[in-house]
Amino acid sequence: MKKSLGAKMLIGAATVWVVGTYDREGRPNLMAVAWGGACCSDPPCIGVSLRKATYSYRGIVERKAFTVNIPSTRHLKETDYAGIASGRDEDKWQATGLTPVRSELVDAPYVAEFPLVLECRLLHTLELGLHTRFIGEIVDVKAEESALGDNNSIDIAKMDAFLYIPGIRTYHGIGPCLGKAHSIGAGLRKNRS
Amino acid sequence: MKKSLGAKMLIGAATVWVVGTYDREGRPNLMAVAWGGACCSDPPCIGVSLRKATYSYRGIVERKAFTVNIPSTRHLKETDYAGIASGRDEDKWQATGLTPVRSELVDAPYVAEFPLVLECRLLHTLELGLHTRFIGEIVDVKAEESALGDNNSIDIAKMDAFLYIPGIRTYHGIGPCLGKAHSIGAGLRKNRS
Repeated sequence: MKKSLGAKMLIGAATVWVVGTYDREGRPNLMAVAWGGACCSDPPCIGVSLRKATYSYRGIVERKAFTVNIPSTRHLKETDYAGIASGRDEDKWQATGLTPVRSELVDAPYVAEFPLVLECRLLHTLELGLHTRFIGEIVDVKAEESALGDNNSIDIAKMDAFLYIPGIRTYHGIGPCLGKAHSIGAGLRKNRS
Repeated sequence: MKKSLGAKMLIGAATVWVVGTYDREGRPNLMAVAWGGACCSDPPCIGVSLRKATYSYRGIVERKAFTVNIPSTRHLKETDYAGIASGRDEDKWQATGLTPVRSELVDAPYVAEFPLVLECRLLHTLELGLHTRFIGEIVDVKAEESALGDNNSIDIAKMDAFLYIPGIRTYHGIGPCLGKAHSIGAGLRKNRS
């Protein structure tokens, strides 16, 4: 029996992303976002949602570019801070000790210390209400070699990313492997090939 | 030192969602999607990405509604199957033993057995390339009481959801709690309150 909870944002878990932008004066900023994810495989597009009130919002609108930086648990505290402080009032790079690197491909900075970085050019802007959805095309993915497995694939255990759980507002690690996708359900197919 | 991997969809982890729709004849269908997530807190909106070739695509376009059903690991095999078979050729409910329930709020069915269900009305349709992004407003969230903790919040351990890792294409569980969001990074603030 299901219980109705009303029109709320309860979606299970989401990976935490940190968005990198330049402000009007060319100062780098970074901001943790809870609402981000893949949108399209080809061209590879991702989306991030920001409130208009955030300092990073204008950076994306004006530069038509941003980076997505995926932290490991080593930078849990710094990531949390990047989601509660504003670049309008504080230099988040100084506070966290993280290093901005100018992307050579898009007009935005990325985080040197994080294991995975997506350099994105702005494709679409969608006003939804409290949040604006920015959809960016991934121009390049850059990864630390220490986070890579065979064939340049991400080794999720080495990468050591983490999740945010809306509602209870806690961070969680990524658990053990449960099986191979597009494979373990194949036995249920009508015409098994 | 970062290594360039090219314009690929490598985003870390994503929660697996199963989308529920009706087809033209009113038959319920379900489909696992890898690209889904929150877009806006108010009104609460989520997005899911489907290829035009999928059988569920037309269901969303025609009924202007869909459900998002978040499975627990108990239904890992059934969820994987729902992402590799097509409702055009197979009755996925029969194959999985899952039960469609007609939503009273939107023109779409939800999965009786899954712990968390979002009933959504279609708000925006965005053509991005291989995938179309459907953005839906959450009209109601329904949850199994067994997945709830205090104050009707989701207990992520009880809910037992799982993740999909693009690139290596494996499913993973959700790991242990690492800390409280909007709190553990507060010590880095310039003006601690």
